[in-house]
Amino acid sequence: MSLIVQKFGGSSVANAERVMNVASIITDTYRQGNDVVVVVSAQGDTTDDLIEKAYEINDKPSKREMDMLLTSGEQISIALLAMAIEKLGCPVISLLGWQAGFNTSSAYGQARIKTIKTDRLKAELDHHNIVVVAGFQGINKYDDLTTLGRGGSDTSAVAIAAALHADRCQIFTDVEGVFTADPRKVENAIKLQEITYDEMLELATLGAQVLNNRSVEMAKKYNVEVEVLSSLKRVPGTIVKEVAKMEKMLVRGVTKDTDVARISVTNISNTPGIAFKLFSKLAQKKINVDIILQSIGRDGKKDITFTVSKDNADTAIDAIKNTFDIEDKDIVCDTNVAKISVVGAGMESHPGTASKMFEALFENDINIDMISTSEIKISVLIEAKDADRAVSAVHRAFFQD
Amino acid sequence: MSLIVQKFGGSSVANAERVMNVASIITDTYRQGNDVVVVVSAQGDTTDDLIEKAYEINDKPSKREMDMLLTSGEQISIALLAMAIEKLGCPVISLLGWQAGFNTSSAYGQARIKTIKTDRLKAELDHHNIVVVAGFQGINKYDDLTTLGRGGSDTSAVAIAAALHADRCQIFTDVEGVFTADPRKVENAIKLQEITYDEMLELATLGAQVLNNRSVEMAKKYNVEVEVLSSLKRVPGTIVKEVAKMEKMLVRGVTKDTDVARISVTNISNTPGIAFKLFSKLAQKKINVDIILQSIGRDGKKDITFTVSKDNADTAIDAIKNTFDIEDKDIVCDTNVAKISVVGAGMESHPGTASKMFEALFENDINIDMISTSEIKISVLIEAKDADRAVSAVHRAFFQD
Repeated sequence: MSLIVQKFGGSSVANAERVMNVASIITDTYRQGNDVVVVVSAQGDTTDDLIEKAYEINDKPSKREMDMLLTSGEQISIALLAMAIEKLGCPVISLLGWQAGFNTSSAYGQARIKTIKTDRLKAELDHHNIVVVAGFQGINKYDDLTTLGRGGSDTSAVAIAAALHADRCQIFTDVEGVFTADPRKVENAIKLQEITYDEMLELATLGAQVLNNRSVEMAKKYNVEVEVLSSLKRVPGTIVKEVAKMEKMLVRGVTKDTDVARISVTNISNTPGIAFKLFSKLAQKKINVDIILQSIGRDGKKDITFTVSKDNADTAIDAIKNTFDIEDKDIVCDTNVAKISVVGAGMESHPGTASKMFEALFENDINIDMISTSEIKISVLIEAKDADRAVSAVHRAFFQD
Repeated sequence: MSLIVQKFGGSSVANAERVMNVASIITDTYRQGNDVVVVVSAQGDTTDDLIEKAYEINDKPSKREMDMLLTSGEQISIALLAMAIEKLGCPVISLLGWQAGFNTSSAYGQARIKTIKTDRLKAELDHHNIVVVAGFQGINKYDDLTTLGRGGSDTSAVAIAAALHADRCQIFTDVEGVFTADPRKVENAIKLQEITYDEMLELATLGAQVLNNRSVEMAKKYNVEVEVLSSLKRVPGTIVKEVAKMEKMLVRGVTKDTDVARISVTNISNTPGIAFKLFSKLAQKKINVDIILQSIGRDGKKDITFTVSKDNADTAIDAIKNTFDIEDKDIVCDTNVAKISVVGAGMESHPGTASKMFEALFENDINIDMISTSEIKISVLIEAKDADRAVSAVHRAFFQD
């Protein structure tokens, strides 16, 4: 008998039929003799609909009231899912975030889980109940409802799995697992059987959109074995763990990220510490900087180019202008770019990976603008219009040739 | 400075425009220097929509999960109303039933308020916040969400007013107050300035549908002054209190109730205690019996006729058949009936009231089937098809002649 945590996203419970489908996955797992805790998100477009309702009334609602509003979404889905499980004849109880013991920081809209008081969860499991928990939400020290921010339900699921020392945390999505590239766009993309936390983190950061990053970080920290699998097709998914089988692959995946803005600052005086000042200013503003390129420009001046996510671009530009004495013409932002990356723990010992990637791009006439490498990934910045073609070309080079 | 509790029903907050209207009533009250606690129901058809969603999945959901589902409705409305009040520039905080301290019995779907722990409410008022509370809901000793059942938000409002010793509890509805008859159907219906709790109880029971009965009982018990008034038209409403000004009226109102079934049991053996057994059986089944008529039938046998609400009719008939040895032909149920009542504390000292009512019906060729009287009301049972005509005729007799 195992303890399994299963997480279902909003699209998996979008309507009555899908709720029944999810309920049958859960009850099958339960009837195989497992203890089951389920984490579920709000149905389909519920959250967006609620946000729209709020903005109709107030274009700047307080974050506290926004969390009060949005947490109703998961409340609806846990109740409906519990009713579906009742219908299939298994004992079940639904719990809101606070009932399941999720104590969070006070930061409405982006709260962090501080502790999970597992007494109630354990008591319900002792009573042989399937426990359906509202994801994405908790309660702060003022007894007020909070939400965990983007991708929060994945984090809820991994946190429960960690707190209860679950044997596995299954994240159900609308894809069958983690692929070597986006299977909707790249022919012959291959589903991975296993992948390491670090590889998964790179893939998540790089726009693979399978698992939320915070949840992978938490899974790594507490060594929670995560499986990514489909709620629609009952086949094994991809297991994310500390050490993964290599499957004779140098590279685990090729990803595209178009949420990138490239900011170039030119004609900076070439004095020591200038790059440090610039990036510490951005860090203060909580802006993550990705690829960085620094070069000596004309007249001994410096050029610094770096990438940030698109919604951080304006804030970054303002911060730089306010800190340094820079003319408008000397700061340029380009959002028409994409980042293509190959990821794989195997590549560190194979120096040919980068050249293989660059060769594939060169043969397809795709110009590389910036390059960044780490132990387990190589990223290049290219023009956005070439992105899909680039992913296909690089994927072909590694997986078909 | 007064402490005022204001309650708004679902139709008063059905859309963004109405939410803003309600917010302006609340902020006006606050800016006049009052402490304001607001109780609000789920928006418009939200509750019905949620029930429909549930039945799509499970035609017999557990009551616990139903309460988990339905309580999300008020959660949405308190958040939206709080945002509207923020928009109008007043400090505000929304509280769920459990956050506002509503401790209830465990009976899901029809929980009773046991206590209200007012610490949080008082703290928020001390911080000069307008407090918006979710009506209709609370929490039981297991930390699970409960609903108070039909008309529960009125009860929530009166309970808070009682617990906080509020100066007044204003119940906003889509009518301007309590009228001498339904103003949509009866010409020249008159709005009452004041009415006693007992009169209001009779009017509520009799189908006036202005205030929920449990809330009036609670208002009477804790001597909470209640005002019924319109959320759309800013004019004084009707005040419900212990002693009301008489306004030279014998009768306070004429009401119609069509949720009535008349059950006749004939050929019962004329032995002592038979009526007692019959009605105690119905009491066991928690069926309220209203008008009762007993007569001696043929061969020394008894006939007993009584009325119950329509949805209790089948249960009542089954209970009687299972208890007594009664043939099918000897039990008859008629749902094509209506109860017309006149209510008024003034009538006890005026013996002419009943004859005036009967005369009005006689002159309009309306046949009286059963009669029931109390100190402050006279009810008659007639055919349903005559109901509206009967109300108009009786109302004319008392208020225009």
